[in-house]
Amino acid sequence: MVRIGVDVGGTGIQTGVVNEKGEILAEESIVTLTDIPFSDQILRMTSSAKSVLRTAGLTEDDVESVGVGIPGIASRETGEVIKCTNMGWSHVPFRAEWEKSFPKTVLIENDANVAALAESVAGVSAGSSSSVFITIGTGIGSGIIINGKIWTGFHGIGGELGHTIMDLDGVPCTCGNRGCLERYCSATALIRMAREAVNNNPDCRILKEVGGDPNKIQARIVIDLARQNDRMAVSLFQRWVSFLGQAIANVANFLDPEIIVLGGGVSKAGEFLLDAVRSEFPKYVLFRDQLLPEIKLAVLGAKAGVIGAAMLS
Amino acid sequence: MVRIGVDVGGTGIQTGVVNEKGEILAEESIVTLTDIPFSDQILRMTSSAKSVLRTAGLTEDDVESVGVGIPGIASRETGEVIKCTNMGWSHVPFRAEWEKSFPKTVLIENDANVAALAESVAGVSAGSSSSVFITIGTGIGSGIIINGKIWTGFHGIGGELGHTIMDLDGVPCTCGNRGCLERYCSATALIRMAREAVNNNPDCRILKEVGGDPNKIQARIVIDLARQNDRMAVSLFQRWVSFLGQAIANVANFLDPEIIVLGGGVSKAGEFLLDAVRSEFPKYVLFRDQLLPEIKLAVLGAKAGVIGAAMLS
Repeated sequence: MVRIGVDVGGTGIQTGVVNEKGEILAEESIVTLTDIPFSDQILRMTSSAKSVLRTAGLTEDDVESVGVGIPGIASRETGEVIKCTNMGWSHVPFRAEWEKSFPKTVLIENDANVAALAESVAGVSAGSSSSVFITIGTGIGSGIIINGKIWTGFHGIGGELGHTIMDLDGVPCTCGNRGCLERYCSATALIRMAREAVNNNPDCRILKEVGGDPNKIQARIVIDLARQNDRMAVSLFQRWVSFLGQAIANVANFLDPEIIVLGGGVSKAGEFLLDAVRSEFPKYVLFRDQLLPEIKLAVLGAKAGVIGAAMLS
Repeated sequence: MVRIGVDVGGTGIQTGVVNEKGEILAEESIVTLTDIPFSDQILRMTSSAKSVLRTAGLTEDDVESVGVGIPGIASRETGEVIKCTNMGWSHVPFRAEWEKSFPKTVLIENDANVAALAESVAGVSAGSSSSVFITIGTGIGSGIIINGKIWTGFHGIGGELGHTIMDLDGVPCTCGNRGCLERYCSATALIRMAREAVNNNPDCRILKEVGGDPNKIQARIVIDLARQNDRMAVSLFQRWVSFLGQAIANVANFLDPEIIVLGGGVSKAGEFLLDAVRSEFPKYVLFRDQLLPEIKLAVLGAKAGVIGAAMLS
């Protein structure tokens, strides 16, 4: 038997056939369309699932279940997507609609939780009983695994590390509050800090890299220059890593999982980021002379969405 | 069969005989002595346990296990107390020493975790599968219950909500860091805020209540005056409740337990505090239009330490 994993994103929707070992047998990607009726959106997804099954030489009879990861929250009981801003969904009957054209059990879960599950079963935290997966990109997402299972909280609203408050009365957040953790630790945060810094330094290397246009600054550019020991980039990177270290310490102080996995676009900075974070976060852990959670980089990358979704149960 | 519960505190040590329903059959208290050898400290505790058993008309043969709550951390594997600042203990062989004079299985656990367990089995969160207990006193302690069991983390260093960072580069904390949550949400924090405020208001009611001596300000005094609608006290209380609301929202956003229980000295403020917190914390929850964790006051009070310790398994 195989499982279908669907990774719904704001720009593309990946669908894969996944075997019991967590290996992708076939996959395909379709462009996300948000300006068509909801029922048509789902029909495009089930068509993609059927197409990828054909590619794998299988039929619907070979499918045990379907898992879907979304950038939002869903109800486990009703199969309704409660909120998914990127897709423009609010209280839509995802499962019911899906089953009209693809009558198999459908499980829907937040995409950070799905990636956390994938890494904890088939990725870098495989074999661990507890882990917290932190995606560092435009925002900060997180997924909690406890005793080998996704923990979304009792009401399904947990795992939102990015919106815990880290700076009282701090930087305004898109969510309407101030001082949310993702305002300090995301790629967006590093870009904001760099834009502020280049204002007073028209001759800096960061500006040169982007042809003098601060709007073209990316997190990758700052991190690459820090790696090359550019003084301003090093200073920005260190400040940002200190924030990220405090965020990770918050997870260690409160939940203390076996492993903390860093994923998302920024994690491509690799060992350079990992080394910096590993030396920074213990400063903020209360019992820092004890064994602490291991910090590791995600290894499944973009495949985590499809693999993790297929593993939902 | 009964269990012995021991609640080790900085001023007193409570020992109780607890039956299977979580009821205390007999208990006694001894004064904490920290200036005697460790072996004598333990001997006083095992003597107290024997004495309280006699009071209950029972013998050591009736005892299934012994549980001990400490204001610190211990190793489940070795029975060693790793750190317990109030008692002056650092890496002491608690279990081994205890068993010399009272040869029964001894389980040692952090006192906030013990209180969390007590409330979740025999108190206000009884029957819930997940809860977070927050003690609001001199500092902020917390205990996490997941699937009916204490979660201290993989390395035993979790549950330290009080030392998660809530204000980057904020108020210095006793732990050596800055901006720890307990610097804003504890009784100590409210007292600090009140002391700062009375400086510029020599005629305020808060100062009158303490005979003009800011050092005599207690959290209870500020809260009582806020209840009586004293303008300055109301303003202080509201600001402090906003911090506490953000701390509670952090727990809801990240872990989302079924119930969040407020205990510790400050929780004696009762419904007045509860109402204020219940209306404040949802403002800071990302999915605030969903069902949120219930906020409740602890009901076992000082007995939670003995009852919870006896329930350790």
